[in-house]
Amino acid sequence: MSHRTAGHPGLPDDARGDAAEPSASCPEEVTLDVLRGRWTTLVVRELLRGDRSFTDLRQALPMLSDKALADRLAHLVQSGVLERRRQPGWPPRTQYVLTQHGRRLGPVLQVLGDWGDAL
Amino acid sequence: MSHRTAGHPGLPDDARGDAAEPSASCPEEVTLDVLRGRWTTLVVRELLRGDRSFTDLRQALPMLSDKALADRLAHLVQSGVLERRRQPGWPPRTQYVLTQHGRRLGPVLQVLGDWGDAL
Repeated sequence: MSHRTAGHPGLPDDARGDAAEPSASCPEEVTLDVLRGRWTTLVVRELLRGDRSFTDLRQALPMLSDKALADRLAHLVQSGVLERRRQPGWPPRTQYVLTQHGRRLGPVLQVLGDWGDAL
Repeated sequence: MSHRTAGHPGLPDDARGDAAEPSASCPEEVTLDVLRGRWTTLVVRELLRGDRSFTDLRQALPMLSDKALADRLAHLVQSGVLERRRQPGWPPRTQYVLTQHGRRLGPVLQVLGDWGDAL
């Protein structure tokens, strides 16, 4: 997990204001980039309740196609929010587990939800 | 400003898990939808400092093209975050002003920034 240079640039390196991809140069945008994609917040919320296998998540979130769920999980692993943990034994089983930093998304989602709820 | 039905649907009306547009059926996603688009958070942050004209914003946020800035402002007005306020006098001048609910994005951005900063 690398620390990124934060701050609000006056003249960022990459000045494409119309770019579709969110910027990662400012810490709010880093967080928004992690949470981007429909239902991503529900995946995180489900994992805040406990570790889950792909099959568990698929059952809990039937609105996500297998591909969309796999994409969300890969993005969250890459973002340092989740870890894939191989369970010992047979048959092999993989659990998705929030990292310590991922767990701290709990209060972030709460604040986002409170604001959206009051809109 | 209409209240939207919140809650986390088990079986949402619209079940397209791959849809590009964020869902507005869950309050976190409502907030994420308001903040979507690169540099949108910087526009809000600038307005948290005080009312601004288009020209003020353009000067403060040179990384946004005029079109991108106009798009962000229209989206934020439509989302109930901003109001366009016509100043009396000549020449006609319009200021962008945060609504009461828009002002409450201050602590939301703070929480998002703190999480992103620690990643």
